[in-house]
Amino acid sequence: MDCIFCKIVKKEIPSSIVYEDKNALAFLDISPLNKGHTLVIPKKHYETIKDIPEGEMAELAKVVRKVGIAAQKAVGAHGLNITQNNGKAAEQFVPHMHFHLIPRFEEDGIYMTHPKKRYAEGEMEETRKKIEKLI
Amino acid sequence: MDCIFCKIVKKEIPSSIVYEDKNALAFLDISPLNKGHTLVIPKKHYETIKDIPEGEMAELAKVVRKVGIAAQKAVGAHGLNITQNNGKAAEQFVPHMHFHLIPRFEEDGIYMTHPKKRYAEGEMEETRKKIEKLI
Repeated sequence: MDCIFCKIVKKEIPSSIVYEDKNALAFLDISPLNKGHTLVIPKKHYETIKDIPEGEMAELAKVVRKVGIAAQKAVGAHGLNITQNNGKAAEQFVPHMHFHLIPRFEEDGIYMTHPKKRYAEGEMEETRKKIEKLI
Repeated sequence: MDCIFCKIVKKEIPSSIVYEDKNALAFLDISPLNKGHTLVIPKKHYETIKDIPEGEMAELAKVVRKVGIAAQKAVGAHGLNITQNNGKAAEQFVPHMHFHLIPRFEEDGIYMTHPKKRYAEGEMEETRKKIEKLI
């Protein structure tokens, strides 16, 4: 499979690895939003959260937490964003599941905040019921 | 403590709950970026990922996965963003740890993508070493 992250896992492509264990790899994003911007991926090729088994998601979250805390501290940042995008419509550009860990500084010019929408009358409860039914 | 999410957990403030278990609560964001925008929180008051124990983070990630898949499907979305902000500098507005699950549609006008930076010569390896040392 021609997946760039699989190649990074197999060390066929070099990367700046900060953490590695049996199932996960963490390396610096080469086009960082801020210094210390790190990606955490499962070594197995899963495209989105739909594909990764629940137990592996849980283990990966431990790595995300651990590496995220370290990345923020290492660059002396004031905060940290964790983002994980599923699907092209959600701006996932590499189809191998990954978490972005982005150290944030006060007034660093990045804005994650977006215009909010409003539910029409009755639409919120209708949406709530639909989601509840699918869990 | 005057925490709005703690009040939601205690049902002192109403919310549109889609999922609840012993340790986690998921409810619709009242100011959604898109229909089905859901928040997942630990019931215990932890401010950021630094405060939540590793095991509880892992269990919470299972809920995030399960509710995220359901939220995307329920509203017929093409993708899903998961975001989790730590600290004011990272645009965390409620100081009770939470995950945003944001269903995404093709060309929905939301842009999570931001201008990328470049590391200066040697700075990437220096940053890598600093993070590695702290994990």
